[in-house]
Amino acid sequence: MSKTFTYRQLLNFSKNIFLSIGCNSTDAETAANALLSADLRGVDSHGVARLSGYTRLWDAGRVNAKPSIKIVHETASTAVVDGDSGLGLVVAPYAMQVAIGKAKNAGTGWVSVKNSNHFGIAGYHAMMALQHDMIGIAMTNASALVAPTFSAERMLGTNPIAVAIPAGNEPVFVADFATTTAANGKLEILQRKNLAAPQGWIQDKDGQPSTDAGEIKKGGMLLPLGGDKEHGSHKGYALGAIVDIFSGILSGANYGPWVPPFPAYIPMPQDMPGQGIGHFFGAMRIDAFRTADEFKTDMDKWVQRFRKSKTIPGQQKVIIPGDPEREIEIERMKNGIPLLQPVVDDLQSLAKRFDVEL
Amino acid sequence: MSKTFTYRQLLNFSKNIFLSIGCNSTDAETAANALLSADLRGVDSHGVARLSGYTRLWDAGRVNAKPSIKIVHETASTAVVDGDSGLGLVVAPYAMQVAIGKAKNAGTGWVSVKNSNHFGIAGYHAMMALQHDMIGIAMTNASALVAPTFSAERMLGTNPIAVAIPAGNEPVFVADFATTTAANGKLEILQRKNLAAPQGWIQDKDGQPSTDAGEIKKGGMLLPLGGDKEHGSHKGYALGAIVDIFSGILSGANYGPWVPPFPAYIPMPQDMPGQGIGHFFGAMRIDAFRTADEFKTDMDKWVQRFRKSKTIPGQQKVIIPGDPEREIEIERMKNGIPLLQPVVDDLQSLAKRFDVEL
Repeated sequence: MSKTFTYRQLLNFSKNIFLSIGCNSTDAETAANALLSADLRGVDSHGVARLSGYTRLWDAGRVNAKPSIKIVHETASTAVVDGDSGLGLVVAPYAMQVAIGKAKNAGTGWVSVKNSNHFGIAGYHAMMALQHDMIGIAMTNASALVAPTFSAERMLGTNPIAVAIPAGNEPVFVADFATTTAANGKLEILQRKNLAAPQGWIQDKDGQPSTDAGEIKKGGMLLPLGGDKEHGSHKGYALGAIVDIFSGILSGANYGPWVPPFPAYIPMPQDMPGQGIGHFFGAMRIDAFRTADEFKTDMDKWVQRFRKSKTIPGQQKVIIPGDPEREIEIERMKNGIPLLQPVVDDLQSLAKRFDVEL
Repeated sequence: MSKTFTYRQLLNFSKNIFLSIGCNSTDAETAANALLSADLRGVDSHGVARLSGYTRLWDAGRVNAKPSIKIVHETASTAVVDGDSGLGLVVAPYAMQVAIGKAKNAGTGWVSVKNSNHFGIAGYHAMMALQHDMIGIAMTNASALVAPTFSAERMLGTNPIAVAIPAGNEPVFVADFATTTAANGKLEILQRKNLAAPQGWIQDKDGQPSTDAGEIKKGGMLLPLGGDKEHGSHKGYALGAIVDIFSGILSGANYGPWVPPFPAYIPMPQDMPGQGIGHFFGAMRIDAFRTADEFKTDMDKWVQRFRKSKTIPGQQKVIIPGDPEREIEIERMKNGIPLLQPVVDDLQSLAKRFDVEL
């Protein structure tokens, strides 16, 4: 069972919920835009399905709806931003704008963020750079759910990386992926359908391979991209570690197993070394390297050549990163965003609690 | 059969070979240091085993032993370097120094390089930043050997990424990996031993899965990290693509299937859109974010916590990126560098041709 809403409906609803918890009008709009970008792009696990999760963090006193976000340290091309426990959906766009501003003057801008919360999808923030003819980069750490190679302990989050690159006549290139074999959202889908997970996605609480899609609830772990050592999981582990260090240690946020969990009912880790969760953003002005025209001409050629590369029999085409999400966005802008019944119920509870029309 | 040489022997020999092809003394030493770092760190495929390959590129007129390497465009935090067809082993350290110099002034430095050649191991260049209390980043594109997800065509190189991060009392963190499931060097080892390759490493010339370690010689392809779509190969493909674009398109080098091959006997691709192969380097000053002391204290805590994380039964310990290479380096500095007989034969041919003592 599902129900379909227009983008505008869900955007206004989300904005009104953020207003209800005390965000000012600008922040509520910023947060709603970032949140809905996930639903539009087909990343259903990170959109309005999480709205009630954000309000529960606010209930628990872990989200500050009126943060004083500020730069606490900076150079010509860098800054550290203190998110003052604000919504990541508000802190991240602020920090990405700082990166873009630095890049205007110094060629590139790099911003590490502490004291923040879950920021939605990484791709949205990275894509903010595109309109300025810049390459955008966004990453974040997250609460531990992933075991390093050889480990039977949750030490890293799914720690996504997004890179958005301008093109000319071709659509932009947008890679946005968790540094695990599969995102947790995909496991949840398999669980709802009562299906097994492929080998290489998860292990049980003792570190043994498992195909039980419900393993995470029993203390199991996601595996780094690669799955096992023989298939390069030490590379996925290294990528997740780099995201953790750039986001958590460069800024003074928490890192590794100390990153605060998203679900408000899970207790905070003991002896946390930093403040909140951490993000890392980059913006590189194309014309700090070559003219944007030259770059875009080559980028178009790259995209066209890859798109027409020979396919494996049975496969229709080679995909350019960002293609599937863009296609879903066009479709959902036109036909609406379908939500599963539990998500609709959740939003209706929020509507009732805050007296906001859905 | 193998023979063991001291580091100093192979370093002097390599330097003398580079002098013999016309490098000046500084460049010959720079190139030998970069080359030997691979043998020291256990990346045997990228060290002196490639020395004759470099000389054959020089024979073919593709390596300029007296390059005029220069910055052709720059901003406060960026530069594009033209390698003038020099040895990548010389061009890359030059470009990394430019990145470090930019970082001293602007907080970070980012350098894209065109018109270069194979640069040895990425980790060596990234590690140049460490002594300046900076994070170092190095990547390069390479000739096409990897099929994107769903493709049955060689479109990307193994396109490695290296990230080196300073620590305090703990050893430095150095991740250095190809964006494929397995490096080509590992396949060559299996082939020599007449062993099959694991599933997920390669596919045959039609894009069908294969475990034949000799498949590459028959037109087969390496697979991106992840192996297949179900295990996240679209993520490995995206990573390889990002390396290609940062290295090749930001600089004006070649990219995708047009990157020149390392073996001099393979013809150059048709209609190449750029100049030589491309690299990308980054340097981020730690104290452009936090004081180096604060950062290193947290980095030590990170390393210690991960090192002691619970292991899977049967596994001895969780590895920090850079651990295995550092251990091999200590061992080889002490006991020497073992070379397989074909490599020894190759070096002896070089010794004879250039009248240089091995």
